[in-house]
Amino acid sequence: MRVITLTTDFGAADWFVGSMKGVILALNPRVQIVDITHGVPAGDLRAAAFALTASCRFFPKYSIHVAVVDPGVGGHRAALAIQTEDYFFVGPDNGVLSVALAREKIRAVFQITNEQLFLKPLSQTFHGRDMFAPVAAHLSKGLPIQNLGPSKKDFVKLDWPQPHRSANSVTGEIVYIDGFGNAITNISHEPLARPAESSGALFAKRRRLCSIKPSYQAVPRQKAVAVPGSSGFLEIAVNGGSAAAKLGLKIGDAVTFRPKAP
Amino acid sequence: MRVITLTTDFGAADWFVGSMKGVILALNPRVQIVDITHGVPAGDLRAAAFALTASCRFFPKYSIHVAVVDPGVGGHRAALAIQTEDYFFVGPDNGVLSVALAREKIRAVFQITNEQLFLKPLSQTFHGRDMFAPVAAHLSKGLPIQNLGPSKKDFVKLDWPQPHRSANSVTGEIVYIDGFGNAITNISHEPLARPAESSGALFAKRRRLCSIKPSYQAVPRQKAVAVPGSSGFLEIAVNGGSAAAKLGLKIGDAVTFRPKAP
Amino acid sequence: MRVITLTTDFGAADWFVGSMKGVILALNPRVQIVDITHGVPAGDLRAAAFALTASCRFFPKYSIHVAVVDPGVGGHRAALAIQTEDYFFVGPDNGVLSVALAREKIRAVFQITNEQLFLKPLSQTFHGRDMFAPVAAHLSKGLPIQNLGPSKKDFVKLDWPQPHRSANSVTGEIVYIDGFGNAITNISHEPLARPAESSGALFAKRRRLCSIKPSYQAVPRQKAVAVPGSSGFLEIAVNGGSAAAKLGLKIGDAVTFRPKAP
Repeated sequence: MRVITLTTDFGAADWFVGSMKGVILALNPRVQIVDITHGVPAGDLRAAAFALTASCRFFPKYSIHVAVVDPGVGGHRAALAIQTEDYFFVGPDNGVLSVALAREKIRAVFQITNEQLFLKPLSQTFHGRDMFAPVAAHLSKGLPIQNLGPSKKDFVKLDWPQPHRSANSVTGEIVYIDGFGNAITNISHEPLARPAESSGALFAKRRRLCSIKPSYQAVPRQKAVAVPGSSGFLEIAVNGGSAAAKLGLKIGDAVTFRPKAP
Repeated sequence: MRVITLTTDFGAADWFVGSMKGVILALNPRVQIVDITHGVPAGDLRAAAFALTASCRFFPKYSIHVAVVDPGVGGHRAALAIQTEDYFFVGPDNGVLSVALAREKIRAVFQITNEQLFLKPLSQTFHGRDMFAPVAAHLSKGLPIQNLGPSKKDFVKLDWPQPHRSANSVTGEIVYIDGFGNAITNISHEPLARPAESSGALFAKRRRLCSIKPSYQAVPRQKAVAVPGSSGFLEIAVNGGSAAAKLGLKIGDAVTFRPKAP
Repeated sequence: MRVITLTTDFGAADWFVGSMKGVILALNPRVQIVDITHGVPAGDLRAAAFALTASCRFFPKYSIHVAVVDPGVGGHRAALAIQTEDYFFVGPDNGVLSVALAREKIRAVFQITNEQLFLKPLSQTFHGRDMFAPVAAHLSKGLPIQNLGPSKKDFVKLDWPQPHRSANSVTGEIVYIDGFGNAITNISHEPLARPAESSGALFAKRRRLCSIKPSYQAVPRQKAVAVPGSSGFLEIAVNGGSAAAKLGLKIGDAVTFRPKAP
């Protein structure tokens, strides 16, 4: 059974996600539909992009990742279907797919224009249900991606902050705060794998936040620690608590990593 | 694989929805169970009825729609199973199914009384798990609906507000506010398809709220607009914001549509 | 199709649950994954244990129940896989499984140590994705449980409150408050099945709370009542309202049941 994942800002209160699943199952009843999250704040492209980036590679090959955070629905933004070496990505051309795509080997980019695949009438407010859901279902049944519309040269890239590396430090920022209050930075922890670097500390506004340790448990309860997070980035946590609340951290805050003096 | 949908007020915090799914899968492991929503406010029959109405027709033929908003569980309300031309509907006889059923071609109405199908002991507080889940599972396996109990002449209809049409206006009310803060009215937008009518405005308490436009994007960000919503009704929105918060709208507020003077 | 259930404190906002499902489906695409709940308060072992206990027996035989409330992840706690007569249970050895297991016939207890089954690199912050999800998927495909690691003599038991029975009363406490505000006690209602006992009353701090009745509907709206709850325990409710809010009840409050004088 093929997998279709859904990442949206539709929330849990309404029927929007259910309707998308109905449309998919009406076209392909033998598919596994997985919610990545529908709790993205309304219109928050960066949160959705990060959720997709952090999870998409854990799905089986040829999964179809649909992301619908679509404040421009009904306007002039294009609709995208992109094939990478391992997956398909479907969603509005507003950058929501771009952060995940930056790590994939892109094979083909198409604009979705084939109206025969859409629900009729096509609403101007819910392309998740009327366009992206049926397109994903058709892809899951093996429809060649070139049948969706014309190929496309490029797509919108979200302005994603990059960390800056100097001789003695790496400066990045907090890009996501998860439900536990962990503050996830954009500093990849792979380059920190050298022993010296793996024993440094994180600073915010010249204030020392915490040391880097292998796990939450390396510090006493309610103490702050930076760990190599499960998404591949340094993450500021409080053992048994919320780092965001306890340390007053928020998205966009600059953080600097300094390795321990040897 | 047959589809069973679930619409409840059980929320996400507890195990109630999971238990229903366990019961269904124990009887039919090869079924697709889809959550329409479990975020209906506790006991809110109208919200559940609207969620079901807005989504049920997007599911494959012969899907089994189960709605359990059941403040009268354990009392004297009957339990219903209704076959329409395209679907099955299962739930308490308290009106929660009635708004969706008003748009379907009803083929047969049965009262669920066949205790052989229920979990034992049948709790008096959770018929979703003990009665409606196993009944839906049996229907998904092909049990004839007449095996559920005696046929029934009628069922409880929810008191659903109808819009009033005069020579120069249509007056309805707000029946649902979605997670984005869009205020959905009970004014169907199909009769507005004539050009004159599609360029009118919406008023509340004689205050002009907004014009009707084809999409959110037809107005600048943070401006109000009425659009033909994806559920088939006129919907008051704020581009990139919450109409409910920004315009102070709530369920039950009267709204009047006036077409533009030609 | 085998069933894997998930009970976590991961919430709905992030991608954590979705990632676990991706890992499972990459190993076994033909499995039914059911969410019991992901709304457990962060780190609340007792809430998770109760949710699992109240729901696990409604799933088909040989379902694999995975519970990941894991504040000690990355530390010294062991990882458990336990086979009972009817099910498999997988999760951290911190007590989260123990309340459900107290009602099961345990066949075998194993410590999960077989690194060949884990994602690589194994994160020290998300064993739900990197260890428990792949282990559950392998079990669902028939991997013998002894392949997970060495057998284990014992496992951590959560300190679960037991009711005390005297000649004229049973004293227990509130162990869970559900989304409707129903206050679930640890007093099993099976021993109350005798008519005399089924017509008693519940007291808290010597204040009479309510009578015991068969259902919410046995009292007028907004009145308190104790009912035999669907989880097997006496439950304090307010018909059409929240008992927790209306009666000021919270987890840990002592409650005493006194049967009616004959």
